[in-house]
Amino acid sequence: MKLLGAIEAGGTKFVCGIGKEDGTIMDRVSFPTTTPEETMGQVLEYFKGKDVEAIGIGSFGPIDPVLGSPTYGYITTTPKPHWGQYNLVGAVAEHFNVPIGFDTDVNGAALGEYTWGAAQGLDSCLYITVGTGIGAGAVVGGKLVHGLSHPEMGHIVVRRHPDDNYAGFCPYHGDCLEGLAAGPAIGGRWGKPAAELPIDHPAWEMEAHYLAHALMSYVLILSPQKIVMGGGVMKQSHLFPLIRTKLQELLQGYVQHPALNTDINNYIVSPQLGDNAGLSGAIGLAKLALVQE
Amino acid sequence: MKLLGAIEAGGTKFVCGIGKEDGTIMDRVSFPTTTPEETMGQVLEYFKGKDVEAIGIGSFGPIDPVLGSPTYGYITTTPKPHWGQYNLVGAVAEHFNVPIGFDTDVNGAALGEYTWGAAQGLDSCLYITVGTGIGAGAVVGGKLVHGLSHPEMGHIVVRRHPDDNYAGFCPYHGDCLEGLAAGPAIGGRWGKPAAELPIDHPAWEMEAHYLAHALMSYVLILSPQKIVMGGGVMKQSHLFPLIRTKLQELLQGYVQHPALNTDINNYIVSPQLGDNAGLSGAIGLAKLALVQE
Repeated sequence: MKLLGAIEAGGTKFVCGIGKEDGTIMDRVSFPTTTPEETMGQVLEYFKGKDVEAIGIGSFGPIDPVLGSPTYGYITTTPKPHWGQYNLVGAVAEHFNVPIGFDTDVNGAALGEYTWGAAQGLDSCLYITVGTGIGAGAVVGGKLVHGLSHPEMGHIVVRRHPDDNYAGFCPYHGDCLEGLAAGPAIGGRWGKPAAELPIDHPAWEMEAHYLAHALMSYVLILSPQKIVMGGGVMKQSHLFPLIRTKLQELLQGYVQHPALNTDINNYIVSPQLGDNAGLSGAIGLAKLALVQE
Repeated sequence: MKLLGAIEAGGTKFVCGIGKEDGTIMDRVSFPTTTPEETMGQVLEYFKGKDVEAIGIGSFGPIDPVLGSPTYGYITTTPKPHWGQYNLVGAVAEHFNVPIGFDTDVNGAALGEYTWGAAQGLDSCLYITVGTGIGAGAVVGGKLVHGLSHPEMGHIVVRRHPDDNYAGFCPYHGDCLEGLAAGPAIGGRWGKPAAELPIDHPAWEMEAHYLAHALMSYVLILSPQKIVMGGGVMKQSHLFPLIRTKLQELLQGYVQHPALNTDINNYIVSPQLGDNAGLSGAIGLAKLALVQE
């Protein structure tokens, strides 16, 4: 079975690994995200001699995933120092003459859960991560969603919770979803990190308000057959029932489907691939690149 | 060239027509939407002897478009009297033994604009109608968006305009997008129909606020390559520049693409098929049904 390389390029660390076409992960390492020179030096060194037949990259963004575009393969307008307008695919292609798959980290994770995880056998799903930022990717009709560019679902505008006076921390939009509901917003609003707040703290009801509003938009716009919620904040598993109930309240029975009714516990779920969703997704991107070559 | 039948099933009228595979419309009639017996009697009579090789139906909803579902082909939970749980595809299939395509009216219109209109040559687009209700359909990766069910984009929750005290008229959600920005909301809020309000009336700035918020969600979630805005309210063409400017303000340059910047006049457009978008879409659905048979 062919060996595939995987890079999960995150804002705090790059996770690299080797896997097989059936999704098995055979090796996994990680390097802190510092400068492109240093981090990519370690990444390229790791793959040397590993004899992979394709490499998949799921990256933090925004990125340019549009084949044929002059900046295809770049991380584009990120506020992260050193990484703006960085040619990530180019850096890998310079050293490895194999097909390279490239997409957002969250589109990658959606592909991973669709191929080997919670959404196997369906033809659509949505993966959302709630951590230091919020991002989501989606499979629709068996394909990752692209168009003008890639989805940026973490930055939608949500209706404010009536008791919330926190300004929001998104450098672009202030109080968009990410600005109001990512980890730093919880910390900024309540004065301590999410992980230190007791489960009966009002923070969680407010967090569920924002995430349920986001899911309502995703459901009404994309109609995914499964919603997978990952990321650091979602390790607080008591959030799941709060989010499910709020989403049902918001929808008011307008979309009639068991998934949104009696079967909602099986509709909004944790990543089946756990912390490997991102890396598995990058293996999925490598596999796609091999097919498309 | 094969003859195709088209039914645009709307809440006030059913438009029926005959077209060709190249999108040419050869005949067009309409019947008021009263009871299924009366309206469908006229529809079925119209197609008798017309010798069509497939029939496409774009219908008001919610509908069940999921092949294999026990209620496939039904109009489902509509509040419209007489039409709830009505087997529309079944009624047509009983009289015409040809492939039948079935989708929402707005998915149909999106398909029409994608195949023969403003989004030709692209592989994604969004069509939104703003009239007595608000609905939208989309093509992603060359295919109409389906999943759990069909999109219901008109019912997303939008952030309220700070000067708006209108309660919203949606029977399900009160002040969702449709409840705040469809034609009846404009009339209810300002005391006269949209068409009678002068173009410098504050109604239009508020309307643009809501529609731009909706487009922001659609852009960030679906990333469509073209947005086509139709329906009665959008006949007020002075809304277009207001919406474009507000969308740019909301996005704050986060998505870097000429379509959202210098080329926005060509990104958010009127239906190129004009009032035939819906009927052409139904012809498109007939053509798809023929291919899939």
